[in-house]
Amino acid sequence: MKDECGVAGIALDGGSVSYRLFLALYALQHRGQESAGIATWDGNSIRSFKEMGLVSEVFNEGVLEWLGGRIGIGHVRYSTSGGSFPENSQPFTVKFKDGMLAIAHNGNLINTGKLRRHLEKLGATFVSTTDTEVIAYLLVKELLRRDPVDAIRAVMRQLEGSYSLTILINDILIGVRDPLGIKPLVLGKLEDGYIIASESVAIDVLDGELIRDVEPGELVMIKDGEPETYRLVRREGTAHCVFEYIYFARPDSLMNGHLVYDIRKRIGEKLFIEHPVDGDLVSPVPDSGVTFAIGYAAASGIPYLEGLIKNRYLGRTFIMPHQEMREVSVRLKLNVVRPNVENKRVILVDDSIVRGTTSRRIVDYLRSGGAREVHMRIGSPPIIAPCYLGINMSTRDELIASNRSVDQIRDALNLDSIGYISIDGLIEAVGERGEDLCLGCLTGIYPLEIPGERCIVRQMKLTQF
Amino acid sequence: MKDECGVAGIALDGGSVSYRLFLALYALQHRGQESAGIATWDGNSIRSFKEMGLVSEVFNEGVLEWLGGRIGIGHVRYSTSGGSFPENSQPFTVKFKDGMLAIAHNGNLINTGKLRRHLEKLGATFVSTTDTEVIAYLLVKELLRRDPVDAIRAVMRQLEGSYSLTILINDILIGVRDPLGIKPLVLGKLEDGYIIASESVAIDVLDGELIRDVEPGELVMIKDGEPETYRLVRREGTAHCVFEYIYFARPDSLMNGHLVYDIRKRIGEKLFIEHPVDGDLVSPVPDSGVTFAIGYAAASGIPYLEGLIKNRYLGRTFIMPHQEMREVSVRLKLNVVRPNVENKRVILVDDSIVRGTTSRRIVDYLRSGGAREVHMRIGSPPIIAPCYLGINMSTRDELIASNRSVDQIRDALNLDSIGYISIDGLIEAVGERGEDLCLGCLTGIYPLEIPGERCIVRQMKLTQF
Amino acid sequence: MKDECGVAGIALDGGSVSYRLFLALYALQHRGQESAGIATWDGNSIRSFKEMGLVSEVFNEGVLEWLGGRIGIGHVRYSTSGGSFPENSQPFTVKFKDGMLAIAHNGNLINTGKLRRHLEKLGATFVSTTDTEVIAYLLVKELLRRDPVDAIRAVMRQLEGSYSLTILINDILIGVRDPLGIKPLVLGKLEDGYIIASESVAIDVLDGELIRDVEPGELVMIKDGEPETYRLVRREGTAHCVFEYIYFARPDSLMNGHLVYDIRKRIGEKLFIEHPVDGDLVSPVPDSGVTFAIGYAAASGIPYLEGLIKNRYLGRTFIMPHQEMREVSVRLKLNVVRPNVENKRVILVDDSIVRGTTSRRIVDYLRSGGAREVHMRIGSPPIIAPCYLGINMSTRDELIASNRSVDQIRDALNLDSIGYISIDGLIEAVGERGEDLCLGCLTGIYPLEIPGERCIVRQMKLTQF
Amino acid sequence: MKDECGVAGIALDGGSVSYRLFLALYALQHRGQESAGIATWDGNSIRSFKEMGLVSEVFNEGVLEWLGGRIGIGHVRYSTSGGSFPENSQPFTVKFKDGMLAIAHNGNLINTGKLRRHLEKLGATFVSTTDTEVIAYLLVKELLRRDPVDAIRAVMRQLEGSYSLTILINDILIGVRDPLGIKPLVLGKLEDGYIIASESVAIDVLDGELIRDVEPGELVMIKDGEPETYRLVRREGTAHCVFEYIYFARPDSLMNGHLVYDIRKRIGEKLFIEHPVDGDLVSPVPDSGVTFAIGYAAASGIPYLEGLIKNRYLGRTFIMPHQEMREVSVRLKLNVVRPNVENKRVILVDDSIVRGTTSRRIVDYLRSGGAREVHMRIGSPPIIAPCYLGINMSTRDELIASNRSVDQIRDALNLDSIGYISIDGLIEAVGERGEDLCLGCLTGIYPLEIPGERCIVRQMKLTQF
Repeated sequence: MKDECGVAGIALDGGSVSYRLFLALYALQHRGQESAGIATWDGNSIRSFKEMGLVSEVFNEGVLEWLGGRIGIGHVRYSTSGGSFPENSQPFTVKFKDGMLAIAHNGNLINTGKLRRHLEKLGATFVSTTDTEVIAYLLVKELLRRDPVDAIRAVMRQLEGSYSLTILINDILIGVRDPLGIKPLVLGKLEDGYIIASESVAIDVLDGELIRDVEPGELVMIKDGEPETYRLVRREGTAHCVFEYIYFARPDSLMNGHLVYDIRKRIGEKLFIEHPVDGDLVSPVPDSGVTFAIGYAAASGIPYLEGLIKNRYLGRTFIMPHQEMREVSVRLKLNVVRPNVENKRVILVDDSIVRGTTSRRIVDYLRSGGAREVHMRIGSPPIIAPCYLGINMSTRDELIASNRSVDQIRDALNLDSIGYISIDGLIEAVGERGEDLCLGCLTGIYPLEIPGERCIVRQMKLTQF
Repeated sequence: MKDECGVAGIALDGGSVSYRLFLALYALQHRGQESAGIATWDGNSIRSFKEMGLVSEVFNEGVLEWLGGRIGIGHVRYSTSGGSFPENSQPFTVKFKDGMLAIAHNGNLINTGKLRRHLEKLGATFVSTTDTEVIAYLLVKELLRRDPVDAIRAVMRQLEGSYSLTILINDILIGVRDPLGIKPLVLGKLEDGYIIASESVAIDVLDGELIRDVEPGELVMIKDGEPETYRLVRREGTAHCVFEYIYFARPDSLMNGHLVYDIRKRIGEKLFIEHPVDGDLVSPVPDSGVTFAIGYAAASGIPYLEGLIKNRYLGRTFIMPHQEMREVSVRLKLNVVRPNVENKRVILVDDSIVRGTTSRRIVDYLRSGGAREVHMRIGSPPIIAPCYLGINMSTRDELIASNRSVDQIRDALNLDSIGYISIDGLIEAVGERGEDLCLGCLTGIYPLEIPGERCIVRQMKLTQF
Repeated sequence: MKDECGVAGIALDGGSVSYRLFLALYALQHRGQESAGIATWDGNSIRSFKEMGLVSEVFNEGVLEWLGGRIGIGHVRYSTSGGSFPENSQPFTVKFKDGMLAIAHNGNLINTGKLRRHLEKLGATFVSTTDTEVIAYLLVKELLRRDPVDAIRAVMRQLEGSYSLTILINDILIGVRDPLGIKPLVLGKLEDGYIIASESVAIDVLDGELIRDVEPGELVMIKDGEPETYRLVRREGTAHCVFEYIYFARPDSLMNGHLVYDIRKRIGEKLFIEHPVDGDLVSPVPDSGVTFAIGYAAASGIPYLEGLIKNRYLGRTFIMPHQEMREVSVRLKLNVVRPNVENKRVILVDDSIVRGTTSRRIVDYLRSGGAREVHMRIGSPPIIAPCYLGINMSTRDELIASNRSVDQIRDALNLDSIGYISIDGLIEAVGERGEDLCLGCLTGIYPLEIPGERCIVRQMKLTQF
Repeated sequence: MKDECGVAGIALDGGSVSYRLFLALYALQHRGQESAGIATWDGNSIRSFKEMGLVSEVFNEGVLEWLGGRIGIGHVRYSTSGGSFPENSQPFTVKFKDGMLAIAHNGNLINTGKLRRHLEKLGATFVSTTDTEVIAYLLVKELLRRDPVDAIRAVMRQLEGSYSLTILINDILIGVRDPLGIKPLVLGKLEDGYIIASESVAIDVLDGELIRDVEPGELVMIKDGEPETYRLVRREGTAHCVFEYIYFARPDSLMNGHLVYDIRKRIGEKLFIEHPVDGDLVSPVPDSGVTFAIGYAAASGIPYLEGLIKNRYLGRTFIMPHQEMREVSVRLKLNVVRPNVENKRVILVDDSIVRGTTSRRIVDYLRSGGAREVHMRIGSPPIIAPCYLGINMSTRDELIASNRSVDQIRDALNLDSIGYISIDGLIEAVGERGEDLCLGCLTGIYPLEIPGERCIVRQMKLTQF
């Protein structure tokens, strides 16, 4: 089960941590809208509240007051296609011999099935289908005979995949990032405490200061006072998920040392260099294409102008039953600004194309609004392979680029021209070495061993045991 | 954690079991109003749905349709004083090596704490505070090396306390009753299948036929066809909970061979013989005292007449804030029929007195309505000790009878006279040997070893292993 | 549109009237479960809150606090068959030249259609389909040129039908009862104010004292201090609705000088005298037949014993889709106590038979439970005609007694014998003169002119104008 | 009571109008988020459904199916400060002599109080506090003696203020715009019918074609086939609300012949010409300042770059209780993109400043994020007077510009410089004659007589009567 999620953990000198976690999750809401949860240590045990829904729907004052606590963790979870069950909400909380444990997880393990089968043979039972419960199970086993740091090292030795975790072991807060640093995790200083979170925006909302990224393979532990950190795993390189930069993270996040906004704007600029075209306006697909389009417009000197306006009050509408209704779904979300595109050569910019269905509808919609030419520029290279490490994409068969040439895609989308950023251009715009990124979905070559896929596995070694 | 609950399990030849379970739980609603749940086998895995609320609130057609299944179990749970948490709803469902397991439990284990600590030392984790999760954990451990029947036998060897269980191990339905038969469990035949349930009323609502009580220590297993039964434990005597007869069960239940209605009516008759009094009317406290009052009236020849009328539309009202409002709470639930009691000698009949607070309010209310005398007759002996085996009573300190003589209770309740049924009278009315009943709350002597209490422990022996 | 409803109005010396009205409506909940509303005078204008649902669901502490007020009225409305709309909830509140007006109505006007058409010709508009809005419209018209008492007199001259009203004209509380006193209305004294309500049970719940019934054609007005009363209409006789006594009112109500409980018990006694039968037990259909059955048992000496037990936790269940489910509906509500009826001659007592469908199901159910004979005794004479004055019965065609002899009904219900109370017996049990009762549904002769029906119209005259 | 609202009316040749109205209201959601309603003609009477909430929350498939109809109207209503009551939801629907009437209103009448008092003297009653009910009352009075067109002309003679109405008189759809055309209203052609709506975006979502604006003083009536139009009022000039162009309308609307997007972009360009400044980036306050900023950036050549990112998942959060929480409210909604502004000269562009509180918080927030200079450019002239005609602004005292010079405002907002567009510049950007606009809030001179304010009243004359 693949989850895109956001995690947070906060330890205060005093006062009530639940309101801060609420705000932090609010800032991370873009990482998951399906469910939200908070677990806090109340002095004797862990209190937990989690439900399906947005952060603002799940929590109210009464719940936050009840949660209280000086230290705690939180989680938001994404609505993946297919079934979504309350049992899979996080943080996952269990009682064990020495107290209680709560875990919030962002990422995806590759070897869950194997781990589960192994544990089940030893008598393990599971109440959910999450990786998180497997991690909790392994961790409790280790905690029976080791201290928290050694226990987590022992667990990390068994996990394969991506994971950024915030963990509460009774009154101890721990943050952990997988040895390749696939998923982001940052450490921040608050006026009266510390925070560990998926993105720096959660620090910003609390008026705190970003200290630094948690390093791949690093554990940060906060007991009473200052954070202690342990580099539990040595590694060769990293495998930062490139799609965090392209579309998943908020543009105002500082991640692995980069401002996401800058990366996207640079991609836009490079897109013009790689795929220049004569046009009358550069229009984003709102909101995903905005920053790329700003870059493209700046580099080309072609005016930035909105050819499409987004309806800001979409809400959660019911599934419309009539065929005619389904056809209007794109018109409900977007409206073509007809005078802006009529008889114009529109350069339409978006972050990525997955299945292509929505893109095609938008292009047709622009043409019916009078656009003379539509040229599409895309802020990612073609997605040709699935992601196994935390981004919920379609299967290979559904990907429009998996078995089509760029020209075929252009025709399928009814475009005058199409231009994808190249992989090299992308790497340059990101500003990291290519071998420090996970480009699996763009190259089909993964940084971890995945059955049936090509892999260039990075060696990793526990620092000690 | 003490739970009063109702359980059910149904196996059909075909068709959809969820609607039947819904109806069965409906009929068992009096055994628990806090939460309700159903788990069914869908051919590949167990589907489960449970929520806080009444059966009629928790389930709707969509949910029942989704649950489907040919075999399944259900549970209703009582609102005990103190915190009530969604996590404690049942059936408790887990995945394990060989599939899935769901358990619904009515009763209370005495040695949960000990079992939990033992399991936690071995690395066990728990997500709820229920006995049921402990039972599930033990059962999965045994299922790894034994067949279901032997596994349950091995588990029963470790459990101390009361338990009537319905269990789903993948597509196998099992019913189990503890070796003393403290809590009820019956087996019934439906037109197209079999049912195991806490009370026979669940069979009635499905137009089925009661086959017999599940015996203490017996396991009933239903796979494809006919039920197989195993007497897993030999025993000396039983310990049927006497309060099931007095107030917990529905009067129309056939339980351990008795009609509950008959027992209550006989108690009423004996109450007159033990405590006759001149009066103008015999009035029940509705609804709990009705059958006892019918018996008292029949035996005495004094007219049965309602001095109090119950408001049938109470609903779930909010906690009223003003002091004046709290004082009217008894008047909201009951109304004195003034002309029926004015200047009359009222013989007021109820099933039991726990703390006495409500009884006192009712007596005062009758007197303010003009009653000349109020004589109370009670269908149970004084409750002097707590229950450890499944009935959620007050602590010893709160029990009005734990440190007061009968005369003192009479004065505390502002009565002209009071009469409790004697323990011998109760036993006779029930129609079982005293040593086959659990009378712990009435005598302070329990049928199982309970630290700090007097016990007459019944020897029990596993039939084989 | 026919409504069965309950009304209340309370004026206090000070304090908050909304809580009292809440309690009064609570006690009147049996008169209407579809919607509930309260309107209070806040010193400057009338505040109003009304919603679909039970009293306990509609109101909460916040709403009652907001309503506040020293004087106000309330209403509960019955779920009639056919459409039910929020717009029809009451009290009906309007702003007019001299302030605000709120009206709560129990009863049914015969000439609404005529009045509406007349008013519409003058330009009137209506936002609901209720009689109440028509009354409000007429009243505002008169208030423009007369004082409240004369205005209401003028309105009463135009109304034909049954009506018990509580009215708020700014800070004045008024209660009015139609000239024949068809629907009940009582006046009570509270510790710190006065109450006008449909039934005395609303006074009881507030620990107040019943002063007397509001007389037919009488207006009671409460401004600051004591109630002033005006006999606005002279009349010959009354037309008390006999079905209030038989089934609509609560048994503990004192209505028109009678205790409803007494009337029902006397009917039960007379039923034995008129229709004796050998039997082993007298069992009520719960809860409607209880008091009648107590009377029958007392008169006959045959034991009162419950052959049927009602499920106390019905809640509001969804409409079950499968045919099999519909068939169990009677088993969901009632359970036969098999040992009480097996091989027995059951005398089954109920208040009335309307369409007969449910009665037939109950009889069949008793027989399938082993009853050897089933004899039915009914606390009302056969219902042969519709009600036009406030009780929501079936149409003539649906009434089982409208075109069948008693023998045919016996056979249709699969009974060994059936006995209805006679009209004379009923009148005697009630204790009023027959000409003071409305017996329209039993005789087909109505006390007001109804097109197409036989009527014996009582002359009425306004006392002055 | 001042309402900002959106209205729509649709007549189809056949099929179900309710789904279309739902979509149209969806597109107009920005004009009102408090309540939504639809009324349709079902062949016999008008069906209506309205509730507090967003369009997507109020309606579901069941409701739309029930509404059905071939012809109908809809309404969305804005959450104005102060009390908001369900009674005020629209369309307002009444029954009258010749059938039913439903009205949806956008605008604000000036003489409501006078009209109400007059009508109340004649016996009128009101169930809401809306202008709409007054209009309905007047219209019904006229309909009793005239045909719909003449009746509406007679009503228009009495109304003073702004109003765009959609009206259903039984099966006739009518759209009306006030004689000065203060509020917008457009007419569109659908594949199988016609639509009248506040903005052209409601036509776009249905894939229809804008025919033209409804003219000031014009009535459009749609019975069975083609629209008939009547110019009921002659006028001198118009008084288009200039704030519809600046902030209220959607940018993709075509209104009074202009594309709103173009107007805003031109304002941005003129802003640079009127108030040039050296800067490193032009950043909008999202989303209100975006189009203005695009214009400013294009005219100045200074890069368009987002210094602030909006949280897209705000939802409806509860009022946070702690002081600290209130202070974070701006950080919850917006996040400073620190690297984009650090050490930079930021030109911040917004549409308008009302009270200045939020602007000040944003400026402080930018400075705390490291901005070296903050220059603000505003797309409207200073707001110095209240609006009486439909835009819910603050009172004069609360307006930051009502008693402050521009320099004082600059200081109050902690800015390096501030520049408002001039009134002449605004008029030029709009592209209409100044005397055809309502500039009341910018000049304090109103196009209608308003007690205590300066007015230049436009003569108007009914075309005939």
